[in-house]
Amino acid sequence: MRPVPSPFRPVDDAARTLARALLDGARTAALGVIDPESGGPMVTRIAVASSQGRVLALISDLAAHSRALASDPRASLLIAGPPAKGDPLTHPRLTLQCRARFEQDGRDSLRGTWLNAHPKAAIYVDFNDFRFVSFDILQGYLNGGFGKAYVMTRDDVFG
Amino acid sequence: MRPVPSPFRPVDDAARTLARALLDGARTAALGVIDPESGGPMVTRIAVASSQGRVLALISDLAAHSRALASDPRASLLIAGPPAKGDPLTHPRLTLQCRARFEQDGRDSLRGTWLNAHPKAAIYVDFNDFRFVSFDILQGYLNGGFGKAYVMTRDDVFG
Repeated sequence: MRPVPSPFRPVDDAARTLARALLDGARTAALGVIDPESGGPMVTRIAVASSQGRVLALISDLAAHSRALASDPRASLLIAGPPAKGDPLTHPRLTLQCRARFEQDGRDSLRGTWLNAHPKAAIYVDFNDFRFVSFDILQGYLNGGFGKAYVMTRDDVFG
Repeated sequence: MRPVPSPFRPVDDAARTLARALLDGARTAALGVIDPESGGPMVTRIAVASSQGRVLALISDLAAHSRALASDPRASLLIAGPPAKGDPLTHPRLTLQCRARFEQDGRDSLRGTWLNAHPKAAIYVDFNDFRFVSFDILQGYLNGGFGKAYVMTRDDVFG
């Protein structure tokens, strides 16, 4: 494959506003992890909540992505807007390159944040095998539609 | 993290039918690749088409996932049904662990398959930087909703 010109535009306020709106509205994401068996990538769907500069997830020990993150904290989240009509390749979406951190403390506060975003999770939030994970953002890639791509910092995304 | 019991159910015909319906209906997927810079996972959205036992994509050299797949063919595709109301964690979805292969031959046939699934791609299908990639399926994970998970073979998925 030959070298190619940068496909990214300079980040502006409109791009930041769009990225923040996507993150604020996110209730689910596609999570990419390193599969400890193959060393390759694995993508699953998880529930997320964004609050106070942090992306939070509640995941079960039974899930393959939990074992993967316990073994390698490198993660990627693909966040898109709510279901919409038309061509999904023209809908804005945000890729976040992250480091996952299993939360050990502050469960009451995390539980409150979580149930605010996901009221129905009250059924299983206290199950023994469910843990809170925070995703610390290292870099973001915003795709605002065909030809509208931006590389973003954590500050661009969280402001 | 302590050892956990297998969360997977035995694959049955209902699970196979569901997986095949998801694949047949798929027009986009979340693609997980290994980012060559960090060695970590990266997830982006791509257009896909499923035809004759093969999952096909048309990707641009300008996209980060293209450079990643050229460097490491290990890939994962998360495929979900069309946008629907209600809790997305209860909607069925399929994770496919794959190996990506840049297609060198048979462009006319691939082009026909692609335009059948994505008529609007006629605008850019012949651009110089767009290439067809096939994803050979190594393993599948079907999540049919809370507590309904299955490990699948390529034959389960393609029949």
